[in-house]
Amino acid sequence: MKTAPLALFDSVRGCPKEIPHNEKLLSLKYESLDYDNSENQLFLEEERRMSFLGFKCLEISRWVICGLIGFLTGLIACCIDIAVENLAGLKYYVVKQNIEKFTEVGGLSISLILWAVLNSAFVMVGAVIVAFFEPGAAGSGIPQIKCYLNGVKIPRVVRLKTLVVKVCGVICSVAGGLAVGKEGPMIHSGAVVAAGVSQGRSTSLKKDFKIFEYFRRDTEKRDFVSAGAAAGVSAAFGAPVGGVLFSLEEGASFWNQMLTWRIFFASMISTFTLNFFLSIYNNKPGDLSSPGLINFGRFESDSVAYNLYEIPLFIVMGAAGGLLGALFNTLNYWLTIFRIRYVHRPCLQVMEAMLVAAVTATVSFAMIYFSNDCQPLGPDQSEDYPLQLFCADGEYNSMATAFFNTPERSVRSLFHNPPGSYNPLTLSLFTLTYFFLACWTYGLTVSAGVFIPSLLIGAAWGRLFGILLAVWAVPGKYALMGAAAQLGGIVRMTLSLTVIMVEATGNVTYGLPIMLVLLTAKIVGDYFVEGLYDIHIKLQSVPFLHLEAPATSHWLTAREVMGAPVTCFNRIEKVGTIVDVLSNTSTNHNGFPVVVPVAICGLILRSQLIVLLKHKVFVELARSRLTQRKLQLKDFRDAYPRFPPIQSIHVSQDERECMMDLTEFMNPTPYTVPQVYTAFRKDSLCI
Amino acid sequence: MKTAPLALFDSVRGCPKEIPHNEKLLSLKYESLDYDNSENQLFLEEERRMSFLGFKCLEISRWVICGLIGFLTGLIACCIDIAVENLAGLKYYVVKQNIEKFTEVGGLSISLILWAVLNSAFVMVGAVIVAFFEPGAAGSGIPQIKCYLNGVKIPRVVRLKTLVVKVCGVICSVAGGLAVGKEGPMIHSGAVVAAGVSQGRSTSLKKDFKIFEYFRRDTEKRDFVSAGAAAGVSAAFGAPVGGVLFSLEEGASFWNQMLTWRIFFASMISTFTLNFFLSIYNNKPGDLSSPGLINFGRFESDSVAYNLYEIPLFIVMGAAGGLLGALFNTLNYWLTIFRIRYVHRPCLQVMEAMLVAAVTATVSFAMIYFSNDCQPLGPDQSEDYPLQLFCADGEYNSMATAFFNTPERSVRSLFHNPPGSYNPLTLSLFTLTYFFLACWTYGLTVSAGVFIPSLLIGAAWGRLFGILLAVWAVPGKYALMGAAAQLGGIVRMTLSLTVIMVEATGNVTYGLPIMLVLLTAKIVGDYFVEGLYDIHIKLQSVPFLHLEAPATSHWLTAREVMGAPVTCFNRIEKVGTIVDVLSNTSTNHNGFPVVVPVAICGLILRSQLIVLLKHKVFVELARSRLTQRKLQLKDFRDAYPRFPPIQSIHVSQDERECMMDLTEFMNPTPYTVPQVYTAFRKDSLCI
Repeated sequence: MKTAPLALFDSVRGCPKEIPHNEKLLSLKYESLDYDNSENQLFLEEERRMSFLGFKCLEISRWVICGLIGFLTGLIACCIDIAVENLAGLKYYVVKQNIEKFTEVGGLSISLILWAVLNSAFVMVGAVIVAFFEPGAAGSGIPQIKCYLNGVKIPRVVRLKTLVVKVCGVICSVAGGLAVGKEGPMIHSGAVVAAGVSQGRSTSLKKDFKIFEYFRRDTEKRDFVSAGAAAGVSAAFGAPVGGVLFSLEEGASFWNQMLTWRIFFASMISTFTLNFFLSIYNNKPGDLSSPGLINFGRFESDSVAYNLYEIPLFIVMGAAGGLLGALFNTLNYWLTIFRIRYVHRPCLQVMEAMLVAAVTATVSFAMIYFSNDCQPLGPDQSEDYPLQLFCADGEYNSMATAFFNTPERSVRSLFHNPPGSYNPLTLSLFTLTYFFLACWTYGLTVSAGVFIPSLLIGAAWGRLFGILLAVWAVPGKYALMGAAAQLGGIVRMTLSLTVIMVEATGNVTYGLPIMLVLLTAKIVGDYFVEGLYDIHIKLQSVPFLHLEAPATSHWLTAREVMGAPVTCFNRIEKVGTIVDVLSNTSTNHNGFPVVVPVAICGLILRSQLIVLLKHKVFVELARSRLTQRKLQLKDFRDAYPRFPPIQSIHVSQDERECMMDLTEFMNPTPYTVPQVYTAFRKDSLCI
Repeated sequence: MKTAPLALFDSVRGCPKEIPHNEKLLSLKYESLDYDNSENQLFLEEERRMSFLGFKCLEISRWVICGLIGFLTGLIACCIDIAVENLAGLKYYVVKQNIEKFTEVGGLSISLILWAVLNSAFVMVGAVIVAFFEPGAAGSGIPQIKCYLNGVKIPRVVRLKTLVVKVCGVICSVAGGLAVGKEGPMIHSGAVVAAGVSQGRSTSLKKDFKIFEYFRRDTEKRDFVSAGAAAGVSAAFGAPVGGVLFSLEEGASFWNQMLTWRIFFASMISTFTLNFFLSIYNNKPGDLSSPGLINFGRFESDSVAYNLYEIPLFIVMGAAGGLLGALFNTLNYWLTIFRIRYVHRPCLQVMEAMLVAAVTATVSFAMIYFSNDCQPLGPDQSEDYPLQLFCADGEYNSMATAFFNTPERSVRSLFHNPPGSYNPLTLSLFTLTYFFLACWTYGLTVSAGVFIPSLLIGAAWGRLFGILLAVWAVPGKYALMGAAAQLGGIVRMTLSLTVIMVEATGNVTYGLPIMLVLLTAKIVGDYFVEGLYDIHIKLQSVPFLHLEAPATSHWLTAREVMGAPVTCFNRIEKVGTIVDVLSNTSTNHNGFPVVVPVAICGLILRSQLIVLLKHKVFVELARSRLTQRKLQLKDFRDAYPRFPPIQSIHVSQDERECMMDLTEFMNPTPYTVPQVYTAFRKDSLCI
């Protein structure tokens, strides 16, 4: 009965995590989140000293922090939105002028070059800052945040520098006309804001504000980071509830009501802040009508109601989304492998990004140029940059609505433009080209998300599907379902995505069909290949633990997977032994059981031992130097989260003979569990 | 190190649950949910035998069951809605005719008597079936479901008979004009449907359909019941996400993604079913515009936008709601104590209900009669039963809009009627009378909910507040905030209520103010007295465990609260010992540790021991009668959930000397935890 729990704690960093399968085995660069003093004697003493008021104070601080997180995240979203709108607006204005100038006189190739150069220039800036200053800011950041919430810390993922690069990078890549969105990066940004605000200090700025010190441990920090991620989702899609569910879906194992409420609060504040500042920016203060970066526009029940017999059609669309998503993911997987092998030098990465930007401009231009889908300019003028090109006066080029526009606006026009705004050929060509462009773009060394391109591809083929069913169809409704299907097929999020989509459309009656579509897309897609984020997590060799244990591990007991012999310490242990065990790179454990002769009596962490060694908390020294101040919880907190490696701690030969008393510092009541897998999902270990 | 975990399991039914404080100590009639074989050898063997396909099948069954739960719950909601609309419509039509007849000729007292008699008749039927046939159907059922999800089983709360009585009862009480709503009971109805469908049999009908036998254990059943409760919320308010959060808030400790998604599915199906059938009933098939029983009507952003400076006003309203809610709860608490002491005979209960119905009619009539608030009949005719009474032609009595109407419609008219529809005096009088009527009504022996009356009271004073601020105010917006404040002050739900309100209004921009209002109402209210449901749970002496441990118990260890001496069994135990321990009423434990000489090696439940004794699974018999079939999991499942008491099992003197081998049936890997409180929140014990 005794060995099983021992084995478990011995293998806190142990084997059952899935073995990464790509060429470079990078696992060692990741730490797992497990620094928590919450059970040891020092902590309990502190808690006992703390008055009722002290607890209230802590609780209020948590709320204040969450409010701040929401506010700052909303503000960042607002800045990104305004910057992108202005830069993209300027770009499209210049190019439009140029095209109009050359349409009549000939020489449109100059316009093409202008467009391609502008795009490449923006993207170059974006790629350079990412590739050279902070590679961690590449991509959407969602895989990284998923990992963080899962309990695996990827270095520098929540630093202020990452945030700055991320924000500037996303502005450049969206303004640069890549097939990307600015929504995914918001989630990462929110998480960084949360990690920074809650710790009251910044490593990038080397500044410690001496506030919120109580929260300097992994469990508290992770809670705030989940609030930040939720605030990010909320600001991105105007979906506060979706944000909460996203955090729960990705991060939570143990439901905590107060935490959930605080997360919700952060989300609410975030969307409100964005809405409020955007309303001021748009000179309509108080008109809170843009709760998110992407706005699906209003779907009114009466205009786009659906009928029972349409539900099977939606399910078919879900299946199609799953298939296309799987194709997308497979292509992107191969591409990413290629990139890992051949495109790992920063210069190459920047050049690839610029190439993609130029190609995107060229392909878009060609599509617009050869399209002959002319539509009359309506009185309500929903186009922002209508291109007449070779159309008759009073008409505009329909292909340009999709290509000559920020992706967010294109999505909206696919959802809402009246029937007949696009002809089927335009939509097919657009779907095809955008699919490959988006697939090529994801994984570039720029900061950018995949949500909007997915929605756009799906909206295009969904609308096409709607047009082909012309008898009943309001194509906008099918565009929405297609968007959901495609996005679901690519990212495979479920619960949270349903709620996000429902909140973004602002119409609860779409809940059921959206849910069915996402469910189908996930089932079909999972049959072929994993979700895009999971693929990238695997390719980065992060030991990510999914919610469900792999089927084969269901009956594994700790005894079966434990490393033998068991590495453990006595309650009073020789310093030399501890140093040797910690220095042993072959058993790179993060937690060690503490035993008395007959049984386990506690668990002590590597980080705690390192602090103890650093402060030389040896029994002998305590006896000889009575004046030495007692080690306090603060010493642990100050060291968090970057504990020095064992190699940097000098222990003399004499000191190696001293003894250390671990009683006060160990967690005397570790959870002992028989089944391995659940124990590794963080919360069972560090509630 | 050994005694602590032993102590814990010994006191599975032990002391730290709060001691109930009312006069009749009823605790013994409640069982706790803890029947779960999921860890013992029999179960693991079954799982090992089960193929991959078998697991898939189970998973699909779970989805099918959830779909069925949603469908049936939606259908029930639909029936209730149609029945109430028709009965109430008929009643109001008859009374209106009568009033119109007598307004001119005098003799309105006859109308009053007619109204009072009609009300009392309806209520009599509702009260009789509840009081005489199924007292468990009284009230909203939300306290009972909260308890069930908390792990305490109140007898007969999820029986089919309870459902039938509940549905008929709620129709009668709403049609009878009581100050009640039909929304709370939907939650109970959904839960009963779930418990019935998922078990594939009905005790009330004495029918076993021999399906879904795998789900006959507490954990599975509770999961389905939470889905049912969510479906109920969803149908009641058209709030599927709110339903999910309600279930999580009340029920969940451990976040399970698949479960949450199934709950969401049930909720979606439920609101869709209701919507679909109502649209057919209203002859507008496909117009899915009534997703819930209560429909707040559409709040458009542009017409009722709020400004930043209004948020403090909303917070003040929240505080007012908290105060009024505390007053409501305190009055109702005294009233309930009075009822427990003096009104416990069914006849008395029926008479009280009839009295309240008659008084409600009388008070309403008096208010309408003495009111002189006449409003012009608008062209859009939002009143369903406009009463002219003593108003001029083309005008109607404004007080009658509030009193002479189903509460749902009154709420809607308070939210949406244009400014000026009510004068302040009308609103004040209405608030005052309805407050006391609702307070008197809650706790009557009828099946009815408190959501709608709370909303109505709050909407009335909120609108009043809005009118008094006349400068800026659109009163409808303040009515909404008042409604939220009052409801929050009474029931103290937080997260789920915010989402429910947001979904019911269909406008996410109201999220932040509603959240702030509910938060304030809860903080202010909690300062004085608990929430209404918690009060009633306490008054019923249910050992309910809140999410947070009481402050004093934070540092309790199992050792400190354990009963001594520890009651435990050996792995091979004498039958006589087991029978004696189980029969000992002073240590009425439900779970017993199984020990080998040095340590705990498992946990066995009372229910399991009883099945073993009943089937005489004794070591000696197994040896002598080799042909005896081995005890299977099915035997445990068939006995679930009503295991016979130990007294009903006959064990002869010879048999008492036999031995039982518990190894195969015990849970060999119980969780051992040091802090007591969390262990009692069910999921740590029976994940």
